[in-house]
Amino acid sequence: MFIAVIGAGQCDEKTYTLAEQVGRELALRGATVVCGGLGGVMEAACKGAKSVGGHTIGILPGITCRDANSFVDIPIVTGLGEARNSIVVRSGRAVIAIGGEYGTLSEIAFALKFGIPVIGLGTWELARGGTLLASMVEAKDARQAVDLAISAIVA
Amino acid sequence: MFIAVIGAGQCDEKTYTLAEQVGRELALRGATVVCGGLGGVMEAACKGAKSVGGHTIGILPGITCRDANSFVDIPIVTGLGEARNSIVVRSGRAVIAIGGEYGTLSEIAFALKFGIPVIGLGTWELARGGTLLASMVEAKDARQAVDLAISAIVA
Amino acid sequence: MFIAVIGAGQCDEKTYTLAEQVGRELALRGATVVCGGLGGVMEAACKGAKSVGGHTIGILPGITCRDANSFVDIPIVTGLGEARNSIVVRSGRAVIAIGGEYGTLSEIAFALKFGIPVIGLGTWELARGGTLLASMVEAKDARQAVDLAISAIVA
Amino acid sequence: MFIAVIGAGQCDEKTYTLAEQVGRELALRGATVVCGGLGGVMEAACKGAKSVGGHTIGILPGITCRDANSFVDIPIVTGLGEARNSIVVRSGRAVIAIGGEYGTLSEIAFALKFGIPVIGLGTWELARGGTLLASMVEAKDARQAVDLAISAIVA
Repeated sequence: MFIAVIGAGQCDEKTYTLAEQVGRELALRGATVVCGGLGGVMEAACKGAKSVGGHTIGILPGITCRDANSFVDIPIVTGLGEARNSIVVRSGRAVIAIGGEYGTLSEIAFALKFGIPVIGLGTWELARGGTLLASMVEAKDARQAVDLAISAIVA
Repeated sequence: MFIAVIGAGQCDEKTYTLAEQVGRELALRGATVVCGGLGGVMEAACKGAKSVGGHTIGILPGITCRDANSFVDIPIVTGLGEARNSIVVRSGRAVIAIGGEYGTLSEIAFALKFGIPVIGLGTWELARGGTLLASMVEAKDARQAVDLAISAIVA
Repeated sequence: MFIAVIGAGQCDEKTYTLAEQVGRELALRGATVVCGGLGGVMEAACKGAKSVGGHTIGILPGITCRDANSFVDIPIVTGLGEARNSIVVRSGRAVIAIGGEYGTLSEIAFALKFGIPVIGLGTWELARGGTLLASMVEAKDARQAVDLAISAIVA
Repeated sequence: MFIAVIGAGQCDEKTYTLAEQVGRELALRGATVVCGGLGGVMEAACKGAKSVGGHTIGILPGITCRDANSFVDIPIVTGLGEARNSIVVRSGRAVIAIGGEYGTLSEIAFALKFGIPVIGLGTWELARGGTLLASMVEAKDARQAVDLAISAIVA
């Protein structure tokens, strides 16, 4: 069971801790973390997963595996720049979005486009004509985010 | 001067007419329309541009130029599926987003990520923590959208 | 009628002249040159085409249109690095390979994979078990290369 | 230590057995098999690796992990079609090419372009002006191919 964790390559301490909790919870449930392989939220999610013996995959934008954070088990070297975002999303069966900047927004958009469930933790709110989009579920904490992601897959 | 017009591959008549006006205004100002090359908003923008002798480029997701709408002058055949969205955006110096679904949202996200100005016409509203994002400019009609896009480039 | 011209980003004078002749001949027959948009063979082919009023498209690997050689009319900015090679090939209806290094070899391979005719001018020879591959046609000069490319499309 | 095994999606029995031996030898030396994730040589290499408890990664061209052969541990879903070939190559530290058609040739070309060592087993011979290219090493059997690949990395 692969679940993508997406978020910015730089983040504040609170977001880092949240991402670490998400990574740990995912690993405890037997899920493998798929992410963009770099710093910030990606690093934190990998670190959390490894802290309890989990597995991690990093889909890197650059041309060398040396870009991977030190908690990535499986570095995939795409050389595609930001176009690798669609691969991160496609390789997960659900997506947990934590905080995040524009790159994260592109991944949320791709996930919704591909019909992959997205769980948010303090991430983008999307509206059209003043009406909030209902397709994305907001969780209240790391544990609930992981619960919701796993339920969405099983369902 | 290349300007990307993004929007869904299927759209209602009102959106189609709006996209056609945008394409025509762009061509009248000497701008070339770059788009995803398919139907709906993409077709309408190309049709509008061609109606006044403008030029159009379609960055296609599939593996054949036969997917292009009949108003595309330059079909680029990527074979990349949705990952071609980042190319549409990178090839324009500004982006006009008309209506749009999740694919359009991914393109808006990429444009903002790459620092390319985005002008919206009835498109996504983006917020974080209840605060609307100010990076995207909403226009009131086709002419204003084109004015804003061209000003953003010149600036 | 789009025809891809492929070859190295740096080349000797003789190869440059040959690529220029190919570009000019293509333009004289009404074909648009599609290429990778950079220097060497790509620049020469574009220069040749523009010298007789032809049209040129450059599918760039980097993230800015400023990488394009000065004879590219339509710069497409992919940001994909070498992965853009498959787009160059897919966007042509035939391919003319002039000299060339490994990047060119990857494009020849993609063209043959996609069933797109490849005409060679002093380019790679491909063999399996000591037997030369017959799928690629070697031309004796620029004019013959263009003749063969156009015949292959019409056929 | 990730080593890419490349070859056609359909192959004869002799080639299948050879690829299986390569996969097994790689796993016995502690190397992880990276491949395109589909049938033929890719499946055989994964099967060989799994037969001795090794690990396998499949970089898939399509949009679903269901395309992966049943011996892939880590399916990466790119949705990029043939453009995923450069990712297979970039994700290995050496490449073993077994038999192979044009897709394999594109991967050999990318590997040589990226400076990644390529070991051949009954694969393409590349020449320029009648002179065989020396950059690719031909092995006599599976064990020697794996020896050469590992030496090339360590060197």
